[in-house]
Amino acid sequence: MVDTASSPTDTDARSPGADLAIPASARDRFGIGPDWRSGMERLVEWRDVDAFRHANHTAFLLWFEAARNRYLEAMGLPRHASNTPGPVMMDLRVRYLRPLAYHEPVFVTVRTAAMRRRSLEMDYAAWTQDGCAATCTAVLVLMINDTGEKVAIPDAVRGSIRTLDNPREE
Amino acid sequence: MVDTASSPTDTDARSPGADLAIPASARDRFGIGPDWRSGMERLVEWRDVDAFRHANHTAFLLWFEAARNRYLEAMGLPRHASNTPGPVMMDLRVRYLRPLAYHEPVFVTVRTAAMRRRSLEMDYAAWTQDGCAATCTAVLVLMINDTGEKVAIPDAVRGSIRTLDNPREE
Amino acid sequence: MVDTASSPTDTDARSPGADLAIPASARDRFGIGPDWRSGMERLVEWRDVDAFRHANHTAFLLWFEAARNRYLEAMGLPRHASNTPGPVMMDLRVRYLRPLAYHEPVFVTVRTAAMRRRSLEMDYAAWTQDGCAATCTAVLVLMINDTGEKVAIPDAVRGSIRTLDNPREE
Amino acid sequence: MVDTASSPTDTDARSPGADLAIPASARDRFGIGPDWRSGMERLVEWRDVDAFRHANHTAFLLWFEAARNRYLEAMGLPRHASNTPGPVMMDLRVRYLRPLAYHEPVFVTVRTAAMRRRSLEMDYAAWTQDGCAATCTAVLVLMINDTGEKVAIPDAVRGSIRTLDNPREE
Repeated sequence: MVDTASSPTDTDARSPGADLAIPASARDRFGIGPDWRSGMERLVEWRDVDAFRHANHTAFLLWFEAARNRYLEAMGLPRHASNTPGPVMMDLRVRYLRPLAYHEPVFVTVRTAAMRRRSLEMDYAAWTQDGCAATCTAVLVLMINDTGEKVAIPDAVRGSIRTLDNPREE
Repeated sequence: MVDTASSPTDTDARSPGADLAIPASARDRFGIGPDWRSGMERLVEWRDVDAFRHANHTAFLLWFEAARNRYLEAMGLPRHASNTPGPVMMDLRVRYLRPLAYHEPVFVTVRTAAMRRRSLEMDYAAWTQDGCAATCTAVLVLMINDTGEKVAIPDAVRGSIRTLDNPREE
Repeated sequence: MVDTASSPTDTDARSPGADLAIPASARDRFGIGPDWRSGMERLVEWRDVDAFRHANHTAFLLWFEAARNRYLEAMGLPRHASNTPGPVMMDLRVRYLRPLAYHEPVFVTVRTAAMRRRSLEMDYAAWTQDGCAATCTAVLVLMINDTGEKVAIPDAVRGSIRTLDNPREE
Repeated sequence: MVDTASSPTDTDARSPGADLAIPASARDRFGIGPDWRSGMERLVEWRDVDAFRHANHTAFLLWFEAARNRYLEAMGLPRHASNTPGPVMMDLRVRYLRPLAYHEPVFVTVRTAAMRRRSLEMDYAAWTQDGCAATCTAVLVLMINDTGEKVAIPDAVRGSIRTLDNPREE
């Protein structure tokens, strides 16, 4: 993965720009296929579960949001600020396939499915050791937060995403 | 609205079983049409906004969840507990139309679009004084949380929903 | 309550600048004494409860935060923005006295206990119909978010707070 | 650390029962002294920051909660369930020392300061690479969630905590 956000000496696996490549061991444990190249493991925390003792449906979306933000930084998008292009959610589709229990490990995958001039269609999934727990597709438009102006995907970011995920370009 | 959850003497407008009928004044202020019969006004709180100073995309879903829970109690579904039928999210579709600012009033509407034997398709929307901010459709299955068993919509609940929202029955 | 934040024609009881005076009926139901003058009723929502089926300890703090923000707007503090004085939490003390169940009504009270030049000491409490559920004291410093500069409490705000809550001035 | 919660073959560093020992490299980067023995590194995520672009005061508490839960499992407390002893917050004190920015790494430390028969006094801190961002002390009582019954700290858990953190016993 092209990783322009982290300094060469940053070896902390938890830093935002750290390599999101999926380890072979995680592919095995979680049954993740080669159509996914980026992701991160998490634990289902107490804050994620609701009174039905499973991850609330919004917890998945917060995990996808966290994966998206690390992915986009790794692709070269500047860290979110009010005067730089940031992703704004326009359309969201989620299918929930199996419940996730408290303190269960979950692997969250992220990829770009399509790029338009100023927006991205991205896929997400949440994987348990017993199979896929949820899939999601989101359309995000790049916007300058201060002005509300929609902006084109920067060329360097577009190039990094193309190299990594080879999305449709529309 | 049939309101089986509140006692006759409960006059607290904020109680879960209180009438969710949309006041005429709210229809005027927020431009809500007659195809919606139930809803509640909220304020966009600090907990709802993210660092882009707008309601996070998950805040809308938490408002829809709150409206769903009050609506289902008003329809006669027992208050959520581990051994009674509760709604579990299966499929979610959201379109985000305009941003919502901190401390902006928002009116959240809810209705049942379709009933199957053990699941509901519900619509939601979030309304600002400048137009609709988001629409959502969700499919929820009724489940006993303790056992994971899917159960039929109770007849009394089905009857209340039919009277109020006249959904498709599939 | 001095209410400089809402326009004279704003009659919406849920608007941020609406009167936070505690109705006599709420004082009766929740057992709130005359040492509290401001507050708001809420419902314990699904998002507030954790897998122990009670309001999570952080839910109380989010309710206190919401009450604080409405109170400070009502006292004349400009709506939170990056270039106006906003409250930043410095010190927090909470005592949890009884659990709060899902969909239980809760009344949240707020007052200023002390004013210094650039900071406030504020008290909060959460009231159920069976007694007080939590008490809290917080010290907040006023800061311009863009610069991190600590600023004095504006005179008009200081005057409104003095009139309403008669806090210690240190 | 005594780690009774994870199976011997579980080598996943993110699993709840994984070793919470603080690596020497983390002690160096974050300036953590020998009075702390347990902790975990996190990233300040988008969900953690509010519209002032810093971690909200409740985000720290959710990190401390996550650290507490992993620590207590590592000490042998059964995973949270409705019929086993779980920690319930009684008293909380937090001092906020410096703001935390979005995507900043933070190291969260946890230890037991005192044990009584049925309650624990625990300390927490959040560390940035520029110094300590927050300290916290919390009193938690062990309770069976289903019944509300307060229970004694199990002997094995008491023994593990004594060995690790050598707290006051009162």
